[in-house]
Amino acid sequence: MKDINFDELEVGYDVPAIPGMDEGDIQTPALVLDLDALERNIKKMGDYAKAHGMRHRVHGKMHKSVDVAKLQESLGGACGVCCQKVSEAEVFARGGIKDVMVSNQVTDLAKIDRLARMPKFGARVLCCVDDPENVANLSAAAVKHGTQIEALVEIDCGAGRCGVTSTADVVKIAKMIDAAEGLKFAGIQAYQGAMQHMDSYADRSEKTGIAIGMVEDALAGLKAVGLECDIVGGGGTGSYYFESNSGAFNELQCGSYAFMDADYGRILDKEGKRIDEGEWENALFILTTVMSHSKADKAIVDAGLKAQSVDSGLPTIYGRDDAVEYLKCSDEHGVVGDPDGVLKVNDKLKLVPGHCDPTCNVHDWYVGVRGGKVEVVWPVSARGKAY
Amino acid sequence: MKDINFDELEVGYDVPAIPGMDEGDIQTPALVLDLDALERNIKKMGDYAKAHGMRHRVHGKMHKSVDVAKLQESLGGACGVCCQKVSEAEVFARGGIKDVMVSNQVTDLAKIDRLARMPKFGARVLCCVDDPENVANLSAAAVKHGTQIEALVEIDCGAGRCGVTSTADVVKIAKMIDAAEGLKFAGIQAYQGAMQHMDSYADRSEKTGIAIGMVEDALAGLKAVGLECDIVGGGGTGSYYFESNSGAFNELQCGSYAFMDADYGRILDKEGKRIDEGEWENALFILTTVMSHSKADKAIVDAGLKAQSVDSGLPTIYGRDDAVEYLKCSDEHGVVGDPDGVLKVNDKLKLVPGHCDPTCNVHDWYVGVRGGKVEVVWPVSARGKAY
Repeated sequence: MKDINFDELEVGYDVPAIPGMDEGDIQTPALVLDLDALERNIKKMGDYAKAHGMRHRVHGKMHKSVDVAKLQESLGGACGVCCQKVSEAEVFARGGIKDVMVSNQVTDLAKIDRLARMPKFGARVLCCVDDPENVANLSAAAVKHGTQIEALVEIDCGAGRCGVTSTADVVKIAKMIDAAEGLKFAGIQAYQGAMQHMDSYADRSEKTGIAIGMVEDALAGLKAVGLECDIVGGGGTGSYYFESNSGAFNELQCGSYAFMDADYGRILDKEGKRIDEGEWENALFILTTVMSHSKADKAIVDAGLKAQSVDSGLPTIYGRDDAVEYLKCSDEHGVVGDPDGVLKVNDKLKLVPGHCDPTCNVHDWYVGVRGGKVEVVWPVSARGKAY
Repeated sequence: MKDINFDELEVGYDVPAIPGMDEGDIQTPALVLDLDALERNIKKMGDYAKAHGMRHRVHGKMHKSVDVAKLQESLGGACGVCCQKVSEAEVFARGGIKDVMVSNQVTDLAKIDRLARMPKFGARVLCCVDDPENVANLSAAAVKHGTQIEALVEIDCGAGRCGVTSTADVVKIAKMIDAAEGLKFAGIQAYQGAMQHMDSYADRSEKTGIAIGMVEDALAGLKAVGLECDIVGGGGTGSYYFESNSGAFNELQCGSYAFMDADYGRILDKEGKRIDEGEWENALFILTTVMSHSKADKAIVDAGLKAQSVDSGLPTIYGRDDAVEYLKCSDEHGVVGDPDGVLKVNDKLKLVPGHCDPTCNVHDWYVGVRGGKVEVVWPVSARGKAY
């Protein structure tokens, strides 16, 4: 990762803050990380994975940050990173992550060529396959560059996106990968993305049960043709305990647990308690400032649609027990209800974003704070890397 | 604007394309501009403003591009740019735009200081005020830097965001601006942002009528105390004809007309026709590629939530008369219904984004195409400039 010379940068233009600054002087809107909470989340998930004999390949697509990924390795024992795009994977590999999986299909020939070059950065490189025709293209690129791509067969175990749905197809593609020059069959990718945000623990358990059943069937099918899986990967913040206790999976791929967000926070644990009330802490905030209070009962803040994604609902306001509430937003404005008129111009609020992944993707920097001071300013290293 | 040495860049990592490339080789997902359509839109609005004796201060917050703003000046006769943030305004001023308005409140002291420095880049600098206490802070910063800030009073004429709602408040703040050292009273900002997307022409006319009435009242109040308005600004893509024919406004602030999007395109003109079927052309697209078709009736494309904002609805698919339809998305996946199975892996689709402004804000580049070739690759110069 590039060293940043903060002396050459301007706060409020290039960066929202510099280390050493008071938290109150951060230019808004800005993504702020509570470093204590972040470290506790990372350590907790790392400890859980270790105690359950699982590897944890952290989902780097959530934060897109080499710095956070390295913290997940050093503090959380992560075995590497997964992400969704080749350009994103390159950022992690160039940044020094040594085990990088594109947990997605790579079919465009130019992208395949880039993927095949990536092991030259010193990283183990993996991707997923759901299309027999893709195997030859991946193989040809690896041969051309004299590298090895490890390929997993992706199972669609309920998300309705990429992936095959029958053991016959898993075995067929796995055999093709195993036979292809430049490729190595690495296992199964089975992430059930559609169920992670279901409120009910029982509903999530039922859906994950279906996924586990499909994986067990595929594993039996592969074993019957003599193929072993180094990786059986899946599991997210809403399901990792199911995969960990399945006996079928050996790698987790959790992302949001590290930061939390308002939508994920609402889902319920086994005891019916919100997962942001004990299981995980809110570590990510959008710091925003009141810029107008010309109406008695409304404050207008500087974080609107360009400081967050509202696909999964509006942000919530953190750490207040008054009636202040984020009501709606337009491109650059947030409308905050203030029925008791407690806010004034230039007051700051901490928002918990509705959905962390696409919110992080609109910001260039994380401002890491501890004890009221800015401790680090980390680039969102793979921001915009959507290719 | 910074010169870009494309020889040092990597297509698919740093940039999605380079000039001269075939349109079909653009790395996706990418924002693509149809340069012919863009130029026709820009010229048409410029001609309209000129014919109606209006200045056109184009809304740079929509595209965040110095290159597009300069095209709007050269081809559309734009008098300058408005935008919503100081950091955004700095990009335009540093890029050579000579007349830059922050059509928003600037209240944070650090941001005011930056604003007051901006005239040193050679630009006329304007901002809006809705709070009497803000006047002294703006004045002090202008005096400190030996510059002039031109200030408009913002009227909330229906959007429910920033702005005062009575002529008495307009006059009070205008007099304070007029009397303040370092400031110049420049007029009235009256943009009705909440009505622009109403489908019905009659509804938009009614809401704009209310705004025009408020502006006329404010103008009379200002005249009574001897204050003239250089600028009476407002009007968007859904209302510019009302402001142009009002006799009260003299500046338009249209943004979306240049690119169009799916949500704006649905609103109806006077004859009940969608405005994207004659009035304006779709010039902005998200180019996306099919990366999986493992289910017979669904294609999975590479443009999800990180390639667009879906706050105003999903994108539509452009230029096809078959049953292919963008059904839903997650972070990096779009699910495209393909009931007739006409798509195959690596096919490309052109999406019309639901909402252009926040969609442009997640991309780093515009790829301008003409006649099937990439002609220009422009940076989204103020992307992420939300401070």
